[in-house]
Amino acid sequence: MAIVVQKYGGSSVADVEKIRLVAERVARTRQEGKQVVVVVSAMGDTTDELLALARSVCENPSRRELDMLLTAGERISMALLSMALNALGVPAVSFTGSQSGIITNEAHTNARIVEVRPQRVFQALDEGKVVIVAGYQGVSRTREVTTLGRGGSDATAVALAAALGAEACEIYSDVDGVYSADPREVPGALRLDELSYEEMHALAESGARVLNAQAVEFARRAGVILHARQTFGSAAETRIGPADPWDRRVVGVASEGSLIGIRIERGAPGLVARLRELGVPTQELWVEGEGGASFLLSKERVVDWPAVVEDLRGRGASAEDGLGTVSVVGTGMDEDARMLERFLEIVGEQRPRRVTASRHRLSAWIPEEARSRLAVELHRAFLEEAAA
Amino acid sequence: MAIVVQKYGGSSVADVEKIRLVAERVARTRQEGKQVVVVVSAMGDTTDELLALARSVCENPSRRELDMLLTAGERISMALLSMALNALGVPAVSFTGSQSGIITNEAHTNARIVEVRPQRVFQALDEGKVVIVAGYQGVSRTREVTTLGRGGSDATAVALAAALGAEACEIYSDVDGVYSADPREVPGALRLDELSYEEMHALAESGARVLNAQAVEFARRAGVILHARQTFGSAAETRIGPADPWDRRVVGVASEGSLIGIRIERGAPGLVARLRELGVPTQELWVEGEGGASFLLSKERVVDWPAVVEDLRGRGASAEDGLGTVSVVGTGMDEDARMLERFLEIVGEQRPRRVTASRHRLSAWIPEEARSRLAVELHRAFLEEAAA
Repeated sequence: MAIVVQKYGGSSVADVEKIRLVAERVARTRQEGKQVVVVVSAMGDTTDELLALARSVCENPSRRELDMLLTAGERISMALLSMALNALGVPAVSFTGSQSGIITNEAHTNARIVEVRPQRVFQALDEGKVVIVAGYQGVSRTREVTTLGRGGSDATAVALAAALGAEACEIYSDVDGVYSADPREVPGALRLDELSYEEMHALAESGARVLNAQAVEFARRAGVILHARQTFGSAAETRIGPADPWDRRVVGVASEGSLIGIRIERGAPGLVARLRELGVPTQELWVEGEGGASFLLSKERVVDWPAVVEDLRGRGASAEDGLGTVSVVGTGMDEDARMLERFLEIVGEQRPRRVTASRHRLSAWIPEEARSRLAVELHRAFLEEAAA
Repeated sequence: MAIVVQKYGGSSVADVEKIRLVAERVARTRQEGKQVVVVVSAMGDTTDELLALARSVCENPSRRELDMLLTAGERISMALLSMALNALGVPAVSFTGSQSGIITNEAHTNARIVEVRPQRVFQALDEGKVVIVAGYQGVSRTREVTTLGRGGSDATAVALAAALGAEACEIYSDVDGVYSADPREVPGALRLDELSYEEMHALAESGARVLNAQAVEFARRAGVILHARQTFGSAAETRIGPADPWDRRVVGVASEGSLIGIRIERGAPGLVARLRELGVPTQELWVEGEGGASFLLSKERVVDWPAVVEDLRGRGASAEDGLGTVSVVGTGMDEDARMLERFLEIVGEQRPRRVTASRHRLSAWIPEEARSRLAVELHRAFLEEAAA
C-alpha cells in the first residue's frame, strides 16, 4: 500500500476545531487507500509562548533545557490529533521524535537529522494505524532531546518520507503553495505551480517561510517530490521536484529581517571554530583577504543570540544590528549580466554591505527597514515587467 | 555526599515567580552540602487544562494518548526550573521519567513503577549538577510513555529516593504537613507532627490528598523517611516513618467524593478480570455470597470512567452515582468495640451502604452530600472531644 506523509504546521492545528478538521482530512486520505503518516507542529503560537516563558525565567536559557521545554508543544498537538482521529473511528497512534527514530546530531536548538530508524512507524502502519509523529524534534545518540530549528517539522516530514519510501510528501499550511514573493509584502505576488529543488532551497535560504531549507535539501537528495498545499480552502498546490536542466528563469523575490552583521578583521579560523562550538549556522560566511570574515546572524534562528554576540565581541568581532537581505531567485541568475546590472541599479541606493550572485540567486545585505520596499521594486522589475 | 530528594507539587511551581523561589530553596539546600534531586509536577492546573483539551477533542480519549498529552506538563515545569537554577549560577539538568530510568508497567494513566534505573541521575550528580526529574511519568518496557495517576509525582520522588539511597525525601506543597482532617472542611483540624506509614497510607486511601498512597507504600517498603512540608511559609513539618508497635490512637478523619458504587449480583470473577483488563484499580473490591461483588469507582482516578461504567453495565453490573466515603484513621481502630459503636452512631443516620473496620481505619460508604458534615462530626467525636 502506498505511504503518504502529510505535515501540518502550527496554524493548521491552532485550536481544537482545526485539529478536528485536520483529522477529517487525514481520514479521507486513508479512505483513498493510503497508509498515512502525519507530522505535526505545535499548536499555533505555543512554541513562541514557551520561549517567552523561558526568557522570563532566565535571560540566557541553556539550549539543552530549551529543547526539553519546546518539545512539549508537539507532544500536546500530536496526542490531541490522535484522539481526534480515534473519535472519528480511525485507529491512530502518536510517536515522539525519539519513538519514531528521528536521530539527530547534538546541536541543541538547531540539530540536523543524521539517521531515521522508522521500525515503530512501519509496525504501526502494518497494524492499520495512522501514525502521528511529533515534528521539529529528535533524539541524539546520547539520548538527549533535540530540536531542529525553525521550520524543522518540514525536515521531519521529508526525512520520514525518504526513510519510509513514501509516494508523496505533502506540506500543509495556511497558504496554497509557494508564491513569487510574500503576498503580504508584495501585492503582485503570484502562486507558482512548480519549482525545482534548487529554486525552492534558494527561496527558503533567502527568507521565504513556506518551506524549510534543510527539508528541501533532504528532499532533493532522496528524490522525494514535495507538494506545498493549503490545509483549509484552495485545492491548488506548488510541486517541488527535479529541475529541467535547460531552464533559465526568475521565479521569485524573498527578503529577510532581524539579522545582525558580524565582522572580524583578523582571526577567521578561530571565529569559524568558535561558531561551530556555539552551534551557530554559518551558511554564507565570507572569509576575506588578510584573514577577516563576516556573516549574518539571524535572531530568529539563533535563540540565544545576545549571548552569542557578546561571546563574539569578546573575540574582537564587531556587530551591526538592523540588517536584512533581499534576493531574486531563479535558475541561471549569474549567466546574464543584464540581470545583475538591473539588480544593482535597484539595491544600489541603499549602499548594500554585500551583493552576491550565484546560479540560483542574486542577493544583497541592506538596512532592515528598506527590505519591504526593495522587495516590491525587485518583484516589479524582475517578474511583473518582464512578464508583461 | 548525602543525597536529598525534594518534590514540589503543582501549586509550588504555578508561575514563573514561584519557580524562581523554588530554585532559591533548592540552591540553599545545595549550599548546605547536599546533592539534590528535585521532582516536579506540572505547573498549577496544567494537567487539568490538558485533560479538558483532550475531552473537547474526543469524548473517550485513549489512555495511551492521554499519557502522551499529559506528560507535556512536567516537561515544561522541569525545563523552566532547570533554567531558573542556571540563572542563579547553579548547574542543573532536567530528565524526563524515561531518561531518569522510571520503568513502569503498561497500565496507562494509572501505571505502577516496577523498577528504577538511575544511572543518568547518579552520573549528573557526580558532575556536580542538581538533577530535575519530571514527576508523575515513566516509560514501560516497550518504550511507551506512561503516567502514574493522581499524586504520582510523590511516587516518583519516593522511588528515586529509595533507588538513590537518599538521606531524606521531602514532599513540598502549599500546606505545612498532614492534618487531622482537611482544614477547609473541618475547622478544628490540627497539624500532626508524626505519622506511621500505615496511618498515612490509610489517610491517603481515604481521600486525604497531601500524599499519594502508592508513594507511602513504597516509602514503607524501602524504609525512606518522608517529610511533608510547606514550600513557602511555615518551617513545620509532618514526619512519616515506622510505627511504634505499641501505639493505639486516632490520628485523623478523611473523606472522599466523586465515587460511583458498582455492584454485580453474579459473575464476580468475570468482573475482576474485566477490571484488570480495563486497568481500573480494585482496592476494596468486595466479593459477596452467591458470586456477587461491589466496589467504588473514583471519577478522579479513572479518567475514562464513563466508558468503564458503560462497559460494566453491559456485563450486568449496576452503578450508583453520587457516593462518597468518610473514614476515621489511626492505629488499633478495630481493637476497641466502643469506637466502632460510636462510629456507627454517627454515620448510621445516613444508612451507609457499607461499613468496614480494619486495624487502621473505620470507613463508611455514604451519600456524597453528607460527606463534609459527617467529617466534622466524626472529627469532633474522635479527636476534639476525646482530647478534651
